[in-house]
Amino acid sequence: MNNPQLNKNGELQHLLTTEGLPVRILRDILDKASGFVSLAEGHEIKKVPLLHGKSVFNIFFENSTRTRTTFEIAAKKLSADVVNLNIGSSSTSKGETLLDTVDNLCAMHADMFVVRHSTSGAAHLIAKHVAPSIHVINAGDGRHAHPTQALLDMFTIRHYKQDFHNLRVAIVGDILHSRVARSQIHALTTLGVPEVRVVAPKTLLPTHVEKLGVRVYHDMAQGLKDVDVVMMLRLQNERMQGALLPSAQEYFKYYGLTQERLALARSDAIVMHPGPMNRGVEIDSSVADGAQSVILPQVTFGIAVRMAVMSTLAGSKQ
Amino acid sequence: MNNPQLNKNGELQHLLTTEGLPVRILRDILDKASGFVSLAEGHEIKKVPLLHGKSVFNIFFENSTRTRTTFEIAAKKLSADVVNLNIGSSSTSKGETLLDTVDNLCAMHADMFVVRHSTSGAAHLIAKHVAPSIHVINAGDGRHAHPTQALLDMFTIRHYKQDFHNLRVAIVGDILHSRVARSQIHALTTLGVPEVRVVAPKTLLPTHVEKLGVRVYHDMAQGLKDVDVVMMLRLQNERMQGALLPSAQEYFKYYGLTQERLALARSDAIVMHPGPMNRGVEIDSSVADGAQSVILPQVTFGIAVRMAVMSTLAGSKQ
Amino acid sequence: MNNPQLNKNGELQHLLTTEGLPVRILRDILDKASGFVSLAEGHEIKKVPLLHGKSVFNIFFENSTRTRTTFEIAAKKLSADVVNLNIGSSSTSKGETLLDTVDNLCAMHADMFVVRHSTSGAAHLIAKHVAPSIHVINAGDGRHAHPTQALLDMFTIRHYKQDFHNLRVAIVGDILHSRVARSQIHALTTLGVPEVRVVAPKTLLPTHVEKLGVRVYHDMAQGLKDVDVVMMLRLQNERMQGALLPSAQEYFKYYGLTQERLALARSDAIVMHPGPMNRGVEIDSSVADGAQSVILPQVTFGIAVRMAVMSTLAGSKQ
Repeated sequence: MNNPQLNKNGELQHLLTTEGLPVRILRDILDKASGFVSLAEGHEIKKVPLLHGKSVFNIFFENSTRTRTTFEIAAKKLSADVVNLNIGSSSTSKGETLLDTVDNLCAMHADMFVVRHSTSGAAHLIAKHVAPSIHVINAGDGRHAHPTQALLDMFTIRHYKQDFHNLRVAIVGDILHSRVARSQIHALTTLGVPEVRVVAPKTLLPTHVEKLGVRVYHDMAQGLKDVDVVMMLRLQNERMQGALLPSAQEYFKYYGLTQERLALARSDAIVMHPGPMNRGVEIDSSVADGAQSVILPQVTFGIAVRMAVMSTLAGSKQ
Repeated sequence: MNNPQLNKNGELQHLLTTEGLPVRILRDILDKASGFVSLAEGHEIKKVPLLHGKSVFNIFFENSTRTRTTFEIAAKKLSADVVNLNIGSSSTSKGETLLDTVDNLCAMHADMFVVRHSTSGAAHLIAKHVAPSIHVINAGDGRHAHPTQALLDMFTIRHYKQDFHNLRVAIVGDILHSRVARSQIHALTTLGVPEVRVVAPKTLLPTHVEKLGVRVYHDMAQGLKDVDVVMMLRLQNERMQGALLPSAQEYFKYYGLTQERLALARSDAIVMHPGPMNRGVEIDSSVADGAQSVILPQVTFGIAVRMAVMSTLAGSKQ
Repeated sequence: MNNPQLNKNGELQHLLTTEGLPVRILRDILDKASGFVSLAEGHEIKKVPLLHGKSVFNIFFENSTRTRTTFEIAAKKLSADVVNLNIGSSSTSKGETLLDTVDNLCAMHADMFVVRHSTSGAAHLIAKHVAPSIHVINAGDGRHAHPTQALLDMFTIRHYKQDFHNLRVAIVGDILHSRVARSQIHALTTLGVPEVRVVAPKTLLPTHVEKLGVRVYHDMAQGLKDVDVVMMLRLQNERMQGALLPSAQEYFKYYGLTQERLALARSDAIVMHPGPMNRGVEIDSSVADGAQSVILPQVTFGIAVRMAVMSTLAGSKQ
């Protein structure tokens, strides 16, 4: 099968999903990211001239200040020029089609498009359509994928656990609505994690989730038992309607990460969350701010990983 | 008559309209633009340090992501600092007058104002008011003018047709509401195009349009006969009310550009459109994406032409 | 008492308020600002590489295009990278707490936060919370403080009056709702102005305002008598409700600055206003545009003062 993310030399042409991403590329991005962040206390990120003269367009069909900001910082740290486009309220409202908008942006000669869209598959569609000189990065498409989040999560795990080959990882919460979970599962599997668990109520699990190679748990105590990494998900209230939406208290009662529950995991387990957190819903504040939480280093590593993705793309030959 | 666009040395001080713009300045901008775009396949645009240390303010009283973006890219490719100001929702809503807002922005010491306003004449008013060190570029004012669009159209025509002196050009569609059409007509005439036609229903033509030196056609077949260039206009639905607004189907039936109608023009005629397009309203998709369409090169040339305008302004002595 | 604005070496760590700001730091900022603005006619501001490689985040929980723009220009003139964040409509709307948002922004490794918030004390709270490598500048918090506005006012007074030690200064208008007035009073007092007056109706004065060391006047004729500096305030209509809000005509009748009233001040008195002005409400157009008005130089000096604050903060050791 032809991989739409790779060029004919097998180099990364677009980053659309962690599904099917070769392990050598995954590892290469993590290695490159290490070079952009000082791993001493404070994790400083240096400005480098790698993308000087290049233009990065942040094309956000769905608003997300946080994600847009991390890409903007990463691009500026690489000395690229950044243009932010909030398309939701723009040309498409004048009746222009998505692909006409994309054609126009291509004709403005960006080197890279960072695309966020509420529809699954939008980034793939755009990547298929652009000129070969333009690299597309998926910054989240519907329920489908959010590959840079998954990559920064992998970077975080490697930073704290060194190796992937003897880990038990639990992904906890709203798997159904989460583009993050999907991308995490593919990346963990590719990197050789032997045991990936998902812990969630049936109503928040996709059908046939086992086919992704994960073990399914509906009970937190069992799901967290002896794991090395707990990856919490955000309860995507904004993507749920009516009956499906559990009350915050009820959800916390059965699936909230408390100190007590975390104690069932290995004593050196780390706790991750992609943010923004709903404190008291999916995670207790004492855990979020506790010694095992690596939630804020995730954010810092996210800048370095995005720099690594951008410089990898910029370095591939057409 | 004193030309408000020129300084006392006859250099370009502001770009407000193509009306009355001397042909030597028009040609100079087109020549400069050639230097900014590689005319090889792919049309690459290089970053140059010409405006390093200068500040360009994009002052948009009317939102337009597309136009703002092209100016932002052009300024950044010249290494200027760019500040985007969306004024619609800002100080003027606190009761400040337009000229107080402008005075304040002048006092912040920009070198260039790119102004978009829904009122005809706004850019002229602002140009009259600013300190002599500040250059104003009109990025569209009401129904009046959109000179950089016209200049990029001229660049496109010259690129494909080399010379203006033996051309027949048809401008088709909603002339009445179009600041683009007005600016195009002045530029074409100044550059010596011997035959400029406008093709539109009476309801979408300004009264006395003949005084601009154009031939008026109400019929597409006659209007397109043997022309070298077809310049389509966007049907400005958002500027029309009630009875005036034709239905999309009806409009397309009489004035939509189809392959069949285009066949009446010269076989090497080019098709242009300022975007965003209403496919199936003013233009058929097969034409928009066809071999004679130069709609996307127009966008690329637009960056180069805006770079040429900015560097021309920056180079004029006060 | 421990000063939260200073680090352990007594250097400026954050700029939160002019209250308690040591006079040596205040004077140092004014001196530094002189270096950034050419005081010749035209007041040019040069681009310098002092903050190259540093990131400044403009974090605006309350929208203010004007203030955001002045900080953005100042940071870019220092060659910093600037990221604008309009938080009002962002993460906090997803249920994230203010401090989680701040933690996340810290983890993105900015060097400086410019914070605007509608709640008094927000900038202090954030400054307490950030990592020691991050400097916080208060760009206005509720009714509390707006220190860079006060500093640019001090720069303006020193520019036109050279010395603070023999001045009479009147602050006129809506003292109650004004974060500017409070910051001005502290700065004027610290710099040794012997006589600071406030002129306002009782309804627009905070209780016990005398405790700030000012003389209170309810009558314009008495309040302006023989002063060297008239600092007008904006009538903050948007912060008032119902009965408290005077009609514009009534307010102008009693507290509007007219030529006639200004004639009661010293003949070389200067007139200042933080903008945006309500012409015909707190100030007559003939005064706003008159020979004694220094309202527009204030704006220019504001860029230089903000550059001075940022470079002072960047130069302090942790």
